[in-house]
Amino acid sequence: MTEEFEAPHHNQDSLEEHLHQVQLLLAKQKLVEDLVHRQGGPRQDLVESIVHKQNIAELQKKLDELHPADVAYILESLPLNERLVVWDLVKAERDGEILLEVSDAVRESLISSMDNAELLAAAETLDTDEIADLAPDLPHDVIQELLTSLDAQKRARLQSALAFPEDQVGALMDFDMVTIRADVTLEVALRYLRRLGELPDQLDKLFVIERDDHLIGVLPLKRLLTSDPEATVAAIMVEDYVSFHPDDDAHEAAQAFERYDLVMAPVIDTQNRLIGRLTVDAVVDYIRKSAESDMLSMAGLKEEEDLFSTVWKAARNRWMWLAINLMTAFIASRVIGIFEGSIEKLAALAALMPIIAGIGGNSGNQTTALIIRGLALGQITQSNARRLLFKELGVAVLNGIVWGLAVGVFAWLLYQNLALGGVMALAMLLNMIVAALAGILIPLTMERMNRDPALGSSVLLTATTDSMGFFIFLGLATVFLL
Amino acid sequence: MTEEFEAPHHNQDSLEEHLHQVQLLLAKQKLVEDLVHRQGGPRQDLVESIVHKQNIAELQKKLDELHPADVAYILESLPLNERLVVWDLVKAERDGEILLEVSDAVRESLISSMDNAELLAAAETLDTDEIADLAPDLPHDVIQELLTSLDAQKRARLQSALAFPEDQVGALMDFDMVTIRADVTLEVALRYLRRLGELPDQLDKLFVIERDDHLIGVLPLKRLLTSDPEATVAAIMVEDYVSFHPDDDAHEAAQAFERYDLVMAPVIDTQNRLIGRLTVDAVVDYIRKSAESDMLSMAGLKEEEDLFSTVWKAARNRWMWLAINLMTAFIASRVIGIFEGSIEKLAALAALMPIIAGIGGNSGNQTTALIIRGLALGQITQSNARRLLFKELGVAVLNGIVWGLAVGVFAWLLYQNLALGGVMALAMLLNMIVAALAGILIPLTMERMNRDPALGSSVLLTATTDSMGFFIFLGLATVFLL
Repeated sequence: MTEEFEAPHHNQDSLEEHLHQVQLLLAKQKLVEDLVHRQGGPRQDLVESIVHKQNIAELQKKLDELHPADVAYILESLPLNERLVVWDLVKAERDGEILLEVSDAVRESLISSMDNAELLAAAETLDTDEIADLAPDLPHDVIQELLTSLDAQKRARLQSALAFPEDQVGALMDFDMVTIRADVTLEVALRYLRRLGELPDQLDKLFVIERDDHLIGVLPLKRLLTSDPEATVAAIMVEDYVSFHPDDDAHEAAQAFERYDLVMAPVIDTQNRLIGRLTVDAVVDYIRKSAESDMLSMAGLKEEEDLFSTVWKAARNRWMWLAINLMTAFIASRVIGIFEGSIEKLAALAALMPIIAGIGGNSGNQTTALIIRGLALGQITQSNARRLLFKELGVAVLNGIVWGLAVGVFAWLLYQNLALGGVMALAMLLNMIVAALAGILIPLTMERMNRDPALGSSVLLTATTDSMGFFIFLGLATVFLL
Repeated sequence: MTEEFEAPHHNQDSLEEHLHQVQLLLAKQKLVEDLVHRQGGPRQDLVESIVHKQNIAELQKKLDELHPADVAYILESLPLNERLVVWDLVKAERDGEILLEVSDAVRESLISSMDNAELLAAAETLDTDEIADLAPDLPHDVIQELLTSLDAQKRARLQSALAFPEDQVGALMDFDMVTIRADVTLEVALRYLRRLGELPDQLDKLFVIERDDHLIGVLPLKRLLTSDPEATVAAIMVEDYVSFHPDDDAHEAAQAFERYDLVMAPVIDTQNRLIGRLTVDAVVDYIRKSAESDMLSMAGLKEEEDLFSTVWKAARNRWMWLAINLMTAFIASRVIGIFEGSIEKLAALAALMPIIAGIGGNSGNQTTALIIRGLALGQITQSNARRLLFKELGVAVLNGIVWGLAVGVFAWLLYQNLALGGVMALAMLLNMIVAALAGILIPLTMERMNRDPALGSSVLLTATTDSMGFFIFLGLATVFLL
């Protein structure tokens, strides 16, 4: 693919350079339009149309030279109105491949600017597995029309790909594979490849099949290249290979790719029949996307957000977690409300309580981050969970004593009140223990309930350490100080 | 590599099965030892030694069959004492490849159980680029001895690999490449590969060089396989390819691999001379590792932590961020301290203020997460930063009005005090605006200072929204309510 376009850039700088040039052309365009509209007159229209055409031609040339992934990068980096100007200039036959490269949120904005005929034309330039990737964003009637226009095999593939949720191997696989029989010689295999004329990207092995598409081995290209041409495929093929089922978890498949340094692997059904293949580029996209979505969801964003989406859309995207956060804040507020009498008598309590809650939250988040990572790597099992709990409790007690003494001394010196310092130190120790327990139990419970342990862990944890921190500190103060 | 070991598992389940079997064998071992020690006597010693030997043999057999990455997984999942028992049973000649697969923290624990002779023997089974990966954890004298034992080319390679920081391409590249001249035919190239007998993993192209190692093109294996054998390499090679310099940013190289779906790419110097190659498996490891370390550092962990490290080590790893958090909490506490007089008169303020601070923090974190992602993807430029600021301020005002009204009504109804509700609503709106400003400016400033924008952003942001939230709310209350 890369060979057809301008020498791809080996770093971000040249990519940003392309973006900059497009932005300059867009700005020039806008300047000319503004100037002409201010002056008016038929003469100016002529000037406008000439300069306009030159500009447009230059932009179009620029875009034609770029790799689809680079056009996607430029579209992502432009605000909506400029993005649509550029999108109109992209050649129609490249629409499909570029739609595949942009993020979900930007794809939505591009698709909503296209009519059904344009969408259909764009989709028809793609493979079935690529159409399946676009499908969630396409209007229902476009998909129906696509299905009727495909031949039986492709229609079946598209329908089955659409049936898999996006975190299963079936949603990531493609069908660009080359199969071969076991009884031919490598010489024949080489001649067969030459007749094919072109091989799919990311192909590092041929699949060796019997009748009914039963997979019996794989022939790595490097073995094909280095072995005696007289040998048969059966003698050279590898029978011990990593394979996947379409309903395997994509996260675990990604780990297998990382662990065994795979470039591609066959996807088979329960009868060991070859269905498709999984390639490392799909895995890399998946890893990057899940890391991003973990970060965004930990921060409380409901879904991927276009950097330049409208204020209204952006605000709604953030509401769910803000609402949850608001409820937990209300609960913490009511915990404090119980002790309003104590605070009236000793206002220093109000100034000190956020320290207890805050450090507890930070310390619990550290534990949660470790547990989430351990769960993701599959390192936490029933037999070692208890040992982990003891370790984290040990850390909490040690840190609780160290930091409890620090804040205790601070409070004592500041308010000249030794008892207040003591309550502060004890509350800190106890809230650190609460934080360790919550930091372990919240993600483990989420995992056991088959939910993503990262999602919302942080909000739930902070809710616990806030409410409990206020309760412990104000409770102790009420008992011992007042 | 995979072909030599037990059929690698296509999912996590079978991997956990292996771990479980090892744990059972370890437990059996311990049971026998305990039993015998309780009973004592020479007879029991005999029993112990027989059962012991059977057990050990079984464990050893199990480990020998596993892929190095799977042995690494088992070592990572075991507490320290059991980990070292298993490590002792691993064949010495496999030590090197397994050390490469474990995480930094676990590697440290394994290396500290080995003496210099063992380490030297392990390192000598590895390639120079792999030795460079281990080097930071090896004792200084082992590295010196290694350097003297290597031939001149390898020594130069190791020294140059050691010189690159871990986020540069030079630290990720290897030297397993196959080069060819442009003037030979494909027939000759094919014969040359057959003579080589074996090709490196992840090799999808040959590098075409002139004298002095000048790179003039690449010959993808798929072109080699499908083109006429009579054609020359020069006629078939691709001259438009992605390449990297050793001091290129690893993060940007990873993005190029993702963008252009690369399997491997040449690494060249400024005179276009071939130095090494970058492969997708190194890139996948890098992406996974940086995503993990982002998550851990956002949670305030100084470095990668072994899940089963000692309490003392774990506690120290968490101190730096807890200390920073403590200081920011002290500042917020002093802000509240200024208003202790107001709180004494109206204790409801103490109960309500964490709501303002908390929602502001959550909302600012959402903005920060988006900005960090935009920076990582290179989508934020000088020309669009201002537009982003306006969008985020718009979202803040909209959300501030919506949520401000919600908390205002809550406070009004709860305390039957309309003015208190009004102060609450206004404080919420203002703190949302502070959060949006801080959420954009903190990561952008970090980036401009050439620091990782993710690291500590969240702590700094929360410090701002806490202190300002308390100040705005208590300040407004003091002016309007008392």
